Amino acid sequence: MKNNSHYFYLNGDIVPEAQAQLHVSDLGLLRGYGIFDFFRAVDGRPIFMEDHLDRFEHSARKLFLDIPVTRQQLREAILTLIEHNAEPLLGLKMILTGGYSPDGFAPTTPNLFIIAKPFQFASAQGLKLLLVEHLREMSDVKTLNYLQPIWQIPAMRQAGCQDVLYHHEGRLSELSRSNLFLVKNETIITPNTDILFGVTRKHTLALARQHFQVEERPVALDELWTADEVFTTGSTKRIIPITEVNGQAFTSSKVISHLQALFLSHEQQS
Amino acid sequence: MKNNSHYFYLNGDIVPEAQAQLHVSDLGLLRGYGIFDFFRAVDGRPIFMEDHLDRFEHSARKLFLDIPVTRQQLREAILTLIEHNAEPLLGLKMILTGGYSPDGFAPTTPNLFIIAKPFQFASAQGLKLLLVEHLREMSDVKTLNYLQPIWQIPAMRQAGCQDVLYHHEGRLSELSRSNLFLVKNETIITPNTDILFGVTRKHTLALARQHFQVEERPVALDELWTADEVFTTGSTKRIIPITEVNGQAFTSSKVISHLQALFLSHEQQS
Repeated sequence: MKNNSHYFYLNGDIVPEAQAQLHVSDLGLLRGYGIFDFFRAVDGRPIFMEDHLDRFEHSARKLFLDIPVTRQQLREAILTLIEHNAEPLLGLKMILTGGYSPDGFAPTTPNLFIIAKPFQFASAQGLKLLLVEHLREMSDVKTLNYLQPIWQIPAMRQAGCQDVLYHHEGRLSELSRSNLFLVKNETIITPNTDILFGVTRKHTLALARQHFQVEERPVALDELWTADEVFTTGSTKRIIPITEVNGQAFTSSKVISHLQALFLSHEQQS
Repeated sequence: MKNNSHYFYLNGDIVPEAQAQLHVSDLGLLRGYGIFDFFRAVDGRPIFMEDHLDRFEHSARKLFLDIPVTRQQLREAILTLIEHNAEPLLGLKMILTGGYSPDGFAPTTPNLFIIAKPFQFASAQGLKLLLVEHLREMSDVKTLNYLQPIWQIPAMRQAGCQDVLYHHEGRLSELSRSNLFLVKNETIITPNTDILFGVTRKHTLALARQHFQVEERPVALDELWTADEVFTTGSTKRIIPITEVNGQAFTSSKVISHLQALFLSHEQQS
């Protein structure tokens, strides 16, 4: 590895970052038709990789896309990429698209590539959020469609927020790239409708159930305002507090601190 | 032009089709953040190009994307492409994306490219449609997001349909890539909510107003079933009949034939 450049995977080959190009007829580019997943390797060790491979396969199936390699081949490509990119914190993004489409509409043999780049954890200080009325299309599939949150970037900057919080018809769902949790009277509450089922969410819930009451259910927007603590979980976040939503502050973090300690220990043993 | 290969435009250059590649960090590819427009050149003459440039600029503004060339430069690039691609029916697709994003989320300097390929008009026999409950995100912007209709391709094939017809909360909106019109008692009715405002739609409405009563308004789904004639308008369709929706046939085409003749004459004089 020289000059800080990295190696990516592209349709069967490990290539220098600069050579990772696709023809413009790709259906992910032309029509947003594709799926992805993202996970991290810490000091060369992939974190919860099998969970992410499970979800990647789920997303592909939902969009009728065939992953062009076996799971074992994909696993090996990932491990090779980790070897080629010596970073203490490496983010791995696997993308599968509808392929090079002759008519620019019907999917064909998918393109599969993996981007490997260093990443930073989101600030442990916590996030300020902007409420946005929005229902994600095919919410249980990790599609390429991020039109809404990227379009909200100027509004977020103006409000001093780092992400959006989606609600629809009076119900809370999720942030743009991570899941939502409320704490009320030491009960941990998280939406289970209109969301992407996060891998960090899954592990957090399993840990939380050993120490707290847990409610996985539809959550009304109104419940947010009376929550004792609010937090989010995601692969580049682990567990971090939400400190503000639309200007209302959430300050307590007793349960969050407990869960953060449990999670770190669990991740190190995984 | 050799071996049936074509020339595309890519960020300021005219390049052979095979060289039209983008790095995988493009935000159109990774996050579906981008817009496009499509029009055609018939025997080397671009059809309604200024209307399409207007809409392309509108879409770019709505997504806070700066087109990296002037309108005159874009026009000249298009005319050069038409010269380089000697096809009787040439489709021109201009795409503008959020650019190569270092963090894979925030837009940067946009990528602009134009795909130039021969196209075929949709069959004048008309289309069979499958009703789909769906509300397009940012419906007045020609975004890259076609997740829904591409996902419906297997269902369409099974039903012998060529496209979907969207409805939401009891209202009709549009097909996946063209606009909807109903004819009832020689009045021409077309939705004006939750739609992309088509260029062919605009010219069709202007012609229709000279010969028929026209109603541009919200249209209830129920109005579909009692319509005398149903048709769609689009750049690769001009005006073509809808012959069936979810199995119900529409046969009359008196008004459609009249409009088709008016449109062809208007297009030739444009």
